[in-house]
Amino acid sequence: MLEELNRLCDRVAGRRNGMHGQDFLLTWDRSLDDLHTVHDVADVLRQLRERNISCRCFDSGLAVSQFRDNSTRTRFSFASAANLLGLAVQDLDEGKSQLSHGETVRETAVMVSFLSEAIGIRDDMYLGAGHAYMLEVAAALDQACREGVLPSRPAIVNLQSDVDHPTQTMADLLHLAHEFGSVSQLRGRKIVMSWAYSPSYGKPLSVPQGVLGLMTRLGMEVVLAHPPGYDLIPSVLERAAAQSRQSGGSFRTTDDLADAFAGADIVYPKSWAPYAVMERRTELLRAGDRQGLADLERECLATNARFADWTCGRALMDTTREGRALYLHCLPADISGVSCEQGEVEAEVFEQYREPLYRQAGYKPYVIAAMILCSRFRDPAALLRNLARRAAPRLLG
Amino acid sequence: MLEELNRLCDRVAGRRNGMHGQDFLLTWDRSLDDLHTVHDVADVLRQLRERNISCRCFDSGLAVSQFRDNSTRTRFSFASAANLLGLAVQDLDEGKSQLSHGETVRETAVMVSFLSEAIGIRDDMYLGAGHAYMLEVAAALDQACREGVLPSRPAIVNLQSDVDHPTQTMADLLHLAHEFGSVSQLRGRKIVMSWAYSPSYGKPLSVPQGVLGLMTRLGMEVVLAHPPGYDLIPSVLERAAAQSRQSGGSFRTTDDLADAFAGADIVYPKSWAPYAVMERRTELLRAGDRQGLADLERECLATNARFADWTCGRALMDTTREGRALYLHCLPADISGVSCEQGEVEAEVFEQYREPLYRQAGYKPYVIAAMILCSRFRDPAALLRNLARRAAPRLLG
Amino acid sequence: MLEELNRLCDRVAGRRNGMHGQDFLLTWDRSLDDLHTVHDVADVLRQLRERNISCRCFDSGLAVSQFRDNSTRTRFSFASAANLLGLAVQDLDEGKSQLSHGETVRETAVMVSFLSEAIGIRDDMYLGAGHAYMLEVAAALDQACREGVLPSRPAIVNLQSDVDHPTQTMADLLHLAHEFGSVSQLRGRKIVMSWAYSPSYGKPLSVPQGVLGLMTRLGMEVVLAHPPGYDLIPSVLERAAAQSRQSGGSFRTTDDLADAFAGADIVYPKSWAPYAVMERRTELLRAGDRQGLADLERECLATNARFADWTCGRALMDTTREGRALYLHCLPADISGVSCEQGEVEAEVFEQYREPLYRQAGYKPYVIAAMILCSRFRDPAALLRNLARRAAPRLLG
Repeated sequence: MLEELNRLCDRVAGRRNGMHGQDFLLTWDRSLDDLHTVHDVADVLRQLRERNISCRCFDSGLAVSQFRDNSTRTRFSFASAANLLGLAVQDLDEGKSQLSHGETVRETAVMVSFLSEAIGIRDDMYLGAGHAYMLEVAAALDQACREGVLPSRPAIVNLQSDVDHPTQTMADLLHLAHEFGSVSQLRGRKIVMSWAYSPSYGKPLSVPQGVLGLMTRLGMEVVLAHPPGYDLIPSVLERAAAQSRQSGGSFRTTDDLADAFAGADIVYPKSWAPYAVMERRTELLRAGDRQGLADLERECLATNARFADWTCGRALMDTTREGRALYLHCLPADISGVSCEQGEVEAEVFEQYREPLYRQAGYKPYVIAAMILCSRFRDPAALLRNLARRAAPRLLG
Repeated sequence: MLEELNRLCDRVAGRRNGMHGQDFLLTWDRSLDDLHTVHDVADVLRQLRERNISCRCFDSGLAVSQFRDNSTRTRFSFASAANLLGLAVQDLDEGKSQLSHGETVRETAVMVSFLSEAIGIRDDMYLGAGHAYMLEVAAALDQACREGVLPSRPAIVNLQSDVDHPTQTMADLLHLAHEFGSVSQLRGRKIVMSWAYSPSYGKPLSVPQGVLGLMTRLGMEVVLAHPPGYDLIPSVLERAAAQSRQSGGSFRTTDDLADAFAGADIVYPKSWAPYAVMERRTELLRAGDRQGLADLERECLATNARFADWTCGRALMDTTREGRALYLHCLPADISGVSCEQGEVEAEVFEQYREPLYRQAGYKPYVIAAMILCSRFRDPAALLRNLARRAAPRLLG
Repeated sequence: MLEELNRLCDRVAGRRNGMHGQDFLLTWDRSLDDLHTVHDVADVLRQLRERNISCRCFDSGLAVSQFRDNSTRTRFSFASAANLLGLAVQDLDEGKSQLSHGETVRETAVMVSFLSEAIGIRDDMYLGAGHAYMLEVAAALDQACREGVLPSRPAIVNLQSDVDHPTQTMADLLHLAHEFGSVSQLRGRKIVMSWAYSPSYGKPLSVPQGVLGLMTRLGMEVVLAHPPGYDLIPSVLERAAAQSRQSGGSFRTTDDLADAFAGADIVYPKSWAPYAVMERRTELLRAGDRQGLADLERECLATNARFADWTCGRALMDTTREGRALYLHCLPADISGVSCEQGEVEAEVFEQYREPLYRQAGYKPYVIAAMILCSRFRDPAALLRNLARRAAPRLLG
């Protein structure tokens, strides 16, 4: 075990930490080296904790959480990560519908940051807004640091925007690395990000976009499958194509679910709303047009219903490599006959993969903790070795 | 003082800790030895804190709180207990009216538990639901531990269910032990759990049921007094009868308040709703039948009003042993002329016992802390001695 | 740096700490020595933190926060202060509209305090209620301590009442002390507390009252400027007059904004509601008279509009001493053309002072921490020296 820790710390020490003083908003803003470092740090933190060694590297400090959309899983992941490192969570609750702009954003960002070390933000409801909001907060913090108003720069962690969901996809990738042996073992593997039917509508685009934006960098065969019209943000698709070329992998889009699943190593079937619908929805939400929103929902559900056979069933799974592709989901899934009549996945398939799915979710707190740590500490390897050497017990013996 | 600490630790060390890895849902699930250990551990923690010795035995970890009904006292008791041991509270707020079932419960239970050490749950609104919900969460955690999904098993603490309210009754009993010298001094004493009039309706059954379920195990003369119709869950009454026989005490029910109070050592007059009403109310709540709920409330208040003389007044108190039975209440009480026109207790009686009542409430944080500690640590005596030896100051000098 | 720390600690040590075991409700309840001590302790805490030295003097303990009105800035300041000292924040949320009285206040105050070290209260909506409520809580805690129900007395910190806003004005004064060199350098300076136009109505009186109540004690030339009718609580004005005489300063009221600003060293232009309006508003709020509240608002906005030229613009600022008076605001300000069409201050003036304004806000967490510390520790200087000597790192190296 100690050797494994040492090996991971050596790897971290061997890379320049490009995340120091930076935010974690989009995986494609970070180098592959940085992504590997996040994973290695997450693994070290998990192993330290499992060996009853304290990971507390902050004696005090706030971790601000701002959820502009509901959340249970990510809320607890963020709270667990903050607590693991020694930070106290303080919610910034501005009311879910209020979108503040301009001076208000700048001022609030500074006011909550005087003694804060991290700010986790979920803002995924409005297309074109979430990522932009995070950039606005980031610019305010940068300015306040330059002006000497803030003693230090809290790290912003994107807990889901309209563009990306990096804490989810980085946990997914860590899961894959553990299942397949390492990230490099993923080279050449076929991963399918596919749309799936759900009786609800309007699910964010951040997970499929984030999966494409991350997995196309690893030399994988990435396939995006969805019915006609269920497009994602075009610039993300362009990036995915460019990245796959650069990484020696491939990327294609299909509307043939069977073709997509055939021989796949990994499948990620999940519902989302069409990009064009999200744009209309954003306008209607901004206008407070309830009737328009109701009409849009009815129209979309009708369209969705035409693709109710886009579900992840046993027969489809049997067509994957050796009939045993790894099934991924960010949870909660719409499970046919369990959480809804007809949904994204058959109950039998979900149950078969429930245990690895839960394990996948269990990486998220450590991934978030690693993101905070790598932003706030210049030399993560030295810090982790310090923690291991100190070996303060997490539970008193 | 040190000697007293040693004596309590010796007692704890002399008993097998049957609570390790277990939840605290019903007092009658636990051996008398375990109950004594909870009290001794609570007393040690209180004494350590009063001697300015840190009780922090967790360096990190979440204490999840899920309140499906309003709470101030218990919320602060749980928060204080968690904080005393070194845990950070994180609320799980699913909306008060939403009752989740099946996969959702299992999944959520796991998702909030990856780095959690304790889960406190209040769920007392629906008859047949609260305790069942806690068992469902417990089963999910057990399974996740077996599967290796969770690194350790958080302790569930029942902060009030439809069946029992163990943190309340265990604090009550610790109070009695201190007032009467020890738990064994309670043998043969007469304790009256009586219904009392209140202008509100629909108060949970968990306190009277919990009092019967606990006090009948101690060789006491237990009397349950209520007007006709104000029944409790039948199985709890059967258990109370069986336990009183086994413990060498007695248990009877009466609808004669004067007879109940005569010569009593301890009285616990408190309002509750009839079992049958709670069953109807549960159905109406589930059906979302507002009119039905309003009708039921009106009907019940009319019934209640017929027993407005079931109040704890001076004259009644004068009939207790030497006119000075110990008055108990879980608070807040409906005090005639103070918090309502006519209520459970006369202002003069309440005021006479206010100080001991507040002291009684003050035991609850320590009882909860002891429950968490005994579940998460195999050898509580060794841990407490460790804390005493370490003697880290709670307040820096 | 170390010398500066030593100098501050020496100063603190040289004064009797009159705040030990006391609450911080009104600045004029505290001696000037105590106010200086709060500032010195705040400065030491800030310097310790900036030198990466832990200020944690509580190993456990709750900091209860009760916000009966919305708050972001003060909420985060209180949370940061509590966290800096080692306390965990627990919200007491009774619903914003519910005003509890009598037994309920006494009982709740005790129930949340068993393991608590501080209680921060904001209650500024109802004239005649906020300060009275804090006194009621204080009396309950005193009684519970005398009776031995509470092991120790939590410190109440006024986070804004109907009368004073001491955490704000003490942060303002610390800011002034740093800008002008020291508090004694303020002697003879002209400070203007002036009303300013805002498109909203009903802003509390606590800031202008608090500024008068504090600054008149320092030998300053204090000018209160407002349009006819925009009066403050009369007793506060009387106190301000008496204090200014005693301190060798002056105090006058004018309805001539130009006269007020002429030659001023410091200006604090801010909107508030007339005292008489707040009295009527309080009655209407209590009566739940929505129509009456709407009528009052319309009437007041019409009156306000007559004084829309009471705004802090460049031309007015040019008339201050050397055209460069220090501009203060408790934030958020109504900025013309930014947060509203026409407001308290011109955008250009606000932007010029934004950096010092944000720095001003940054003192609040340290001021609150100092208030808690001085109430809970008899000898703050000894404690601070202890922290410096211990030199536990805040961030692990």
